[in-house]
Amino acid sequence: MAPGAGEDLDRVFQALADATRRAVVERLARGPASVSTLAEPFAMSLPTVVQHLGVLERAGVVVSEKTGRVRTFRLTPDGTATARAWLDRHRLPAERRLDRLGEHVGRG
Amino acid sequence: MAPGAGEDLDRVFQALADATRRAVVERLARGPASVSTLAEPFAMSLPTVVQHLGVLERAGVVVSEKTGRVRTFRLTPDGTATARAWLDRHRLPAERRLDRLGEHVGRG
Repeated sequence: MAPGAGEDLDRVFQALADATRRAVVERLARGPASVSTLAEPFAMSLPTVVQHLGVLERAGVVVSEKTGRVRTFRLTPDGTATARAWLDRHRLPAERRLDRLGEHVGRG
Repeated sequence: MAPGAGEDLDRVFQALADATRRAVVERLARGPASVSTLAEPFAMSLPTVVQHLGVLERAGVVVSEKTGRVRTFRLTPDGTATARAWLDRHRLPAERRLDRLGEHVGRG
């Protein structure tokens, strides 16, 4: 494993281990949004939401950009790619075989 | 989302947000192992390793079975399936499209 990759994975998995942060990612998968738009569905103070966004940003899951007074967040392209790759790699060999078989059958 | 699914995801992502626990999963992807076998590569006390295994077991990532005095751990079949499904579902639409295209071309 490349140096730092372990810490990156720590941060990504840690960022996703929270229902509010996952809800933010779910919302951003539909498109970029401002902090106040992201805060709307939650009964939370704005600073708390900003804190959650900070965790996601430091993990590389989201990026933000400020235009005037509005900070807009979006998903990082492939921000969870290392996490997905890790999960795919470390499954039981039988499951990986079954998945390939499923794809094969599904494609007839 | 089904009730409880959020907490399950919390526990799985939390369990994987630690390099030692991921190393244990990597080892178990190659086959079942006893606590002492799992502890070998780590400069850690056995109780610490047992604690990490407990986190993984409560998250449903691993299961254990005791035969005589030896407790053997193995990966739970599809123990990380909900986490993988969540990650696959919440990506940028463009990435999902690119992946499908890649599969298509790869199978050309």
